[in-house]
Amino acid sequence: MLYAMTSKPNLLNNLRIVLCQTSHPGNIGSTARAMKTMGLTQLYLVQPKHFPDAEADSLACGAVDLLEHAVVCDSLEDALKGCALVIGLSARKRQLSHELVAAREAATRAAEIAQNEQTVALVFGTEMSGLSNRELDLCQLLAMIPTNPDFSSLNVAAAVQVMCYELRVAITEGNIQAEAKTPLATNDEMEGFYQHLEETLVKIGYLNPQEPKKLMQRIRRIYARAKLEKEEVNVLRGILKLTQKPRSFEQKDSESEKNV
Amino acid sequence: MLYAMTSKPNLLNNLRIVLCQTSHPGNIGSTARAMKTMGLTQLYLVQPKHFPDAEADSLACGAVDLLEHAVVCDSLEDALKGCALVIGLSARKRQLSHELVAAREAATRAAEIAQNEQTVALVFGTEMSGLSNRELDLCQLLAMIPTNPDFSSLNVAAAVQVMCYELRVAITEGNIQAEAKTPLATNDEMEGFYQHLEETLVKIGYLNPQEPKKLMQRIRRIYARAKLEKEEVNVLRGILKLTQKPRSFEQKDSESEKNV
Repeated sequence: MLYAMTSKPNLLNNLRIVLCQTSHPGNIGSTARAMKTMGLTQLYLVQPKHFPDAEADSLACGAVDLLEHAVVCDSLEDALKGCALVIGLSARKRQLSHELVAAREAATRAAEIAQNEQTVALVFGTEMSGLSNRELDLCQLLAMIPTNPDFSSLNVAAAVQVMCYELRVAITEGNIQAEAKTPLATNDEMEGFYQHLEETLVKIGYLNPQEPKKLMQRIRRIYARAKLEKEEVNVLRGILKLTQKPRSFEQKDSESEKNV
Repeated sequence: MLYAMTSKPNLLNNLRIVLCQTSHPGNIGSTARAMKTMGLTQLYLVQPKHFPDAEADSLACGAVDLLEHAVVCDSLEDALKGCALVIGLSARKRQLSHELVAAREAATRAAEIAQNEQTVALVFGTEMSGLSNRELDLCQLLAMIPTNPDFSSLNVAAAVQVMCYELRVAITEGNIQAEAKTPLATNDEMEGFYQHLEETLVKIGYLNPQEPKKLMQRIRRIYARAKLEKEEVNVLRGILKLTQKPRSFEQKDSESEKNV
């Protein structure tokens, strides 16, 4: 059986490829070509070493339009604005990491979100060392492309090619659950929540800002797995607000009506 | 779930990648790298324009050993000797063609043959025009990688990468291993947490016990989805404890060491 030849451009447009600190402009060009062959269009570049660049254009072949429309960002946070799911590509297992799934499973989950007209980012690290721990903290899910354990050195554009292929198959295969879901919180809403939470933990004396250890990473893991909806973030932030300034129901006003 | 990290080198050695009349030696190098990342080793080159070549070595990165052992042939017939199944990669539908299947299905069929210790060849044409009709006649099956109908120009090494990835998944999928996880919280631990949480929400004035509405159900949904580990429940209950009785770090005692 063949996969449908008709693309669903609207759904593939909900998928964003983010390259972090790419050293070789050729890899940016090959990434654009890899994306376009699979029908993806949204390319974000975080602090690329050389861009725009003639070598990038040359390797992009017929996909120079993606380079022309690429969004160059100063930080990964900027590149993730508005995303409902952030998937980091990882070549190795990390300690205290987020949930780690194989490429195919990651593509299925991304397709489900894209189906709901929300944006998914796939984040790729540098050629030399992949994603840093700080960058991984901004992801909700880690995806690993199965490789030869003795030689797992996938070129970054090759990794993009495999993921975009899996995404295309997942989206055009048609067996995505059509279940309409309530909208998930975007990445910036989640970051706002984490900041509010961290501030609260310091205030109640649970998190020592002098010795934060890995507490916030642990907590990010929990809520990343929960895949919070927009309204749930509001509920949790309401709790944080009152944790910082408790009230009792004797002195309560009409505001409590808003709680649920 | 993750794919097993152990490769089955014997089975992957039964898969042969054949490149026909490749023009750019860089593509041969990238092909070697793509193959090795997926654990394939058998590279056959039919009348390559330039080989061996410094650019091929450079793009192969750590896969130069595959180039050193590559078999250079005068004809496609030579390169296919001993093969039980020959799969040609095709970007477009041909008239009077062989059976045409999607890449994933082709990989499954190839894996079945390799499982029986017989050799399968995957044949890739030139960068400009793919496989000629004469070359296609030597194939028993055509495989197509699903692409964007408006831009199907996959780089040959990128096509090799996708096929080798599918072959690896098809061959290793049999023994998918579940990721070893840290122990999840038991049901009574979760109930203890919910009770502690409810009591805290009443105390800070977020939950009105006279009018609880559906707040606890909403919160249960969040943490049920997160599938909390035992230790995570301890972290969250530590937060609840200090929400009820905040301290400041100026007055903290040795107890704070337990937080993380």
